[in-house]
Amino acid sequence: MKNYANIEDFPIETIEALLDSASMLKKIKFNNLLKNKTMVGLFFNPSTRTRTSFDLAMSQQGGHFISLEPGSKSWGIDFEENMVMDGENEEHLKDAINVLSRYSDCIGVRCFPGFLDWDYDRKDMVLQNILKWSSVPIINMETISHPCQALAMLLTMKEKFNNLKKKKFVLSWSYHPKPLNTAVGNSALIAASMAGMDVTVVNPPYYDLDEKYINIAKDFVVKNGGTVTQSNNQDEGLAAADFVYVKSWGSLKQYGNFKKEEQAKYKDWTITSAKMSLTNNGYISHCLPIRRNLIATDEVLDSENSLIYEEAENRLHVQKAILNYLLGVS
Amino acid sequence: MKNYANIEDFPIETIEALLDSASMLKKIKFNNLLKNKTMVGLFFNPSTRTRTSFDLAMSQQGGHFISLEPGSKSWGIDFEENMVMDGENEEHLKDAINVLSRYSDCIGVRCFPGFLDWDYDRKDMVLQNILKWSSVPIINMETISHPCQALAMLLTMKEKFNNLKKKKFVLSWSYHPKPLNTAVGNSALIAASMAGMDVTVVNPPYYDLDEKYINIAKDFVVKNGGTVTQSNNQDEGLAAADFVYVKSWGSLKQYGNFKKEEQAKYKDWTITSAKMSLTNNGYISHCLPIRRNLIATDEVLDSENSLIYEEAENRLHVQKAILNYLLGVS
Amino acid sequence: MKNYANIEDFPIETIEALLDSASMLKKIKFNNLLKNKTMVGLFFNPSTRTRTSFDLAMSQQGGHFISLEPGSKSWGIDFEENMVMDGENEEHLKDAINVLSRYSDCIGVRCFPGFLDWDYDRKDMVLQNILKWSSVPIINMETISHPCQALAMLLTMKEKFNNLKKKKFVLSWSYHPKPLNTAVGNSALIAASMAGMDVTVVNPPYYDLDEKYINIAKDFVVKNGGTVTQSNNQDEGLAAADFVYVKSWGSLKQYGNFKKEEQAKYKDWTITSAKMSLTNNGYISHCLPIRRNLIATDEVLDSENSLIYEEAENRLHVQKAILNYLLGVS
Repeated sequence: MKNYANIEDFPIETIEALLDSASMLKKIKFNNLLKNKTMVGLFFNPSTRTRTSFDLAMSQQGGHFISLEPGSKSWGIDFEENMVMDGENEEHLKDAINVLSRYSDCIGVRCFPGFLDWDYDRKDMVLQNILKWSSVPIINMETISHPCQALAMLLTMKEKFNNLKKKKFVLSWSYHPKPLNTAVGNSALIAASMAGMDVTVVNPPYYDLDEKYINIAKDFVVKNGGTVTQSNNQDEGLAAADFVYVKSWGSLKQYGNFKKEEQAKYKDWTITSAKMSLTNNGYISHCLPIRRNLIATDEVLDSENSLIYEEAENRLHVQKAILNYLLGVS
Repeated sequence: MKNYANIEDFPIETIEALLDSASMLKKIKFNNLLKNKTMVGLFFNPSTRTRTSFDLAMSQQGGHFISLEPGSKSWGIDFEENMVMDGENEEHLKDAINVLSRYSDCIGVRCFPGFLDWDYDRKDMVLQNILKWSSVPIINMETISHPCQALAMLLTMKEKFNNLKKKKFVLSWSYHPKPLNTAVGNSALIAASMAGMDVTVVNPPYYDLDEKYINIAKDFVVKNGGTVTQSNNQDEGLAAADFVYVKSWGSLKQYGNFKKEEQAKYKDWTITSAKMSLTNNGYISHCLPIRRNLIATDEVLDSENSLIYEEAENRLHVQKAILNYLLGVS
Repeated sequence: MKNYANIEDFPIETIEALLDSASMLKKIKFNNLLKNKTMVGLFFNPSTRTRTSFDLAMSQQGGHFISLEPGSKSWGIDFEENMVMDGENEEHLKDAINVLSRYSDCIGVRCFPGFLDWDYDRKDMVLQNILKWSSVPIINMETISHPCQALAMLLTMKEKFNNLKKKKFVLSWSYHPKPLNTAVGNSALIAASMAGMDVTVVNPPYYDLDEKYINIAKDFVVKNGGTVTQSNNQDEGLAAADFVYVKSWGSLKQYGNFKKEEQAKYKDWTITSAKMSLTNNGYISHCLPIRRNLIATDEVLDSENSLIYEEAENRLHVQKAILNYLLGVS
């Protein structure tokens, strides 16, 4: 049984096959490959694109999508194995997953980290437990990584460049008033490295991504011919970039102990047209939702070089490819 | 590209064609005209009939409906163009609409006004911006007007009268403990005027609808042969009515500054059987949900002359007609 | 018109026919019997299995399921007939049911009791009113009884035993920090009695189920050859049990006046492996969600004799049978 838990779990050949499949499914929008198949999406956190695009990825292929929101419409869920359930939640994840495995053909899970203790959160225990308890394929719809988003980003870049190898990819931190998940950053970094790009990660001091992801990326570029560089100088990082992926995330050094004023020191990391002029007439994208005029200006986001909507659309197409791969119909 | 934003945007011939289409679709309940079509319903406010009837309007015609609730299941959304998004919301309406335009074939929007400043709310900026940003047809599922409800009301009346022209239509304000949206009142007034009815709007002093809608209605009756009258005397207004449309709304004079005790002065505006006896054995309807024994008594609502359920059912049929018209399949 | 309101409303022959139908539908998973049929599920309380399994029971048979949650996505609903609706809710149940009757082919209702006054709650007025107001079949998705769950429990037992007659069925109370609904207990008791089992209900003093349900069960065993016994001694009750159904519920003596410390006296009612060793190598099941290591230990729930997931899966199959029976397609 296959899962789509992390993009780094797959050889680059599989990723390329998924991208080819996604391109084809983008042209032939409707098919009946998922007739009688049901995916359940388990959303512990809000979602607009993920929910809608998975629903469509199923329905446009003859299948069915059911969305559950534990804690509001559905029973609140406890996560810890072997715990005594004497708190507020009525259901254990083990039971939810075992039951949904019997009802459905595939389960998607969105479960952001707890933001209290990174040493704990980095183990991604919820996802790991779900993988253990499920008897149907699991799709990571964002935990501490976001492999569906990363695949959509790859497709979006491939539509612009004949070949991604040695193109300069800049993952730039940007300002947001809250400490966000590092998931999109982690997966974007790895995806670009898998594609053999020259990757630069720019972020303020103390905002480095977990070295686990940096190391995975470095391992990939050895095989695939790119480079991975980290920098605290945004302007230098952006220089001659072919593709800028902007994203805010919280400092892992202040994890569980967020200092709003500290982060506010970096308000000038907002991507502006002036900053984009440092690039090689580079494209820019973001996973959405994006805080306009904080992460990047309206001018940048509404420019011809902005690929935010292309990438959002590509979520649909890559997720069709992932589903068909996992469910053995492609 | 066509939209269904306001009922007054259409010539009466188009409205009549929609009503004919709705009548036909009421008889032949199921078809496959919307195969492979998806409508996304964006609900910023609660909904029972609208949500259910649009879902059915799609599914009974082979299509698919996806419901999103920004701020709960989906990301919270900011509306203002060019703003710096440093508040609570993570997504901008511009991005949500651009993305949903790529995912779907039609977007429905329910977004009640802000109830702080009528000078601002009457511009209906959210709807106007959505119309600007969307690349697929938009359906107004209630903003400051409610054109789907008004079309259902017209169909309900046409099923009872051979000809609506010169029938007496009374739009009567009624008591509710809160200051409600004027949307249903606005669209009902206009729809009845488009149909050439003799329209009387009765409401307490200081509860007049925005003169914009009164003027649109007056323009229509010039063309269509009816009349538009306003009155503060409910009993006189109800006299000889063929059709009473009862609805509560907040005073535009006290907009953003609601005085509960002021409104409570008009508790005796509840429609009772005694008041209905003033009419020409008139029918009564309401958009639902209705506060029973405040807006109208149980006796009135459960009487043979009550058309509340007929109108609610007709929502389904007129919305099928609207969808087929907008999506070019009728 | 048929409804599925309470399991005791049906002769045992009908229940057996439903179980046979469910077994067949479990083998042939997909059909088109419910093409063009829609079920609306009205959820006043959270749901995971019920929501998902009814959605699948419709969609796997070609039909469509719409989920409504009054008070969050949908308008808040008042229940009392003839009331003056001057509180927080905008809609009356009478209107909601009348409208949904016109939109759909079947309505499911989950509405837990008020937990203030058992003399009132035991009348099950919400369900009774819905039955009165609906013009389409109603399914009880848990009010003060849970007949869908009970049917799933029966199917689960029948899959293990050739014949349920005279098998020892123990309904055992267990500890939970809150005072839960007696619904599952009520329906499980009756279902086992209908099947002619030897039924023992064990619970602490003051935790007896309403005698109405005890009496219905006693009437059934007269006809069907089993027995009904009540006991306050859990160990004696469990002795030689073939099937243990564990469930917590609140004391009807302290209804509306819950004493957390009182209930906490019975923390040792948790079903453990030691307790299960008293049985006749008995099976154990529960309706889920279950508080692990309070109601029963992980060791018990994850043992080979645990049927919790089989029963949860069987919800899907029995509900298909119920739907087909009510909608006249089986």
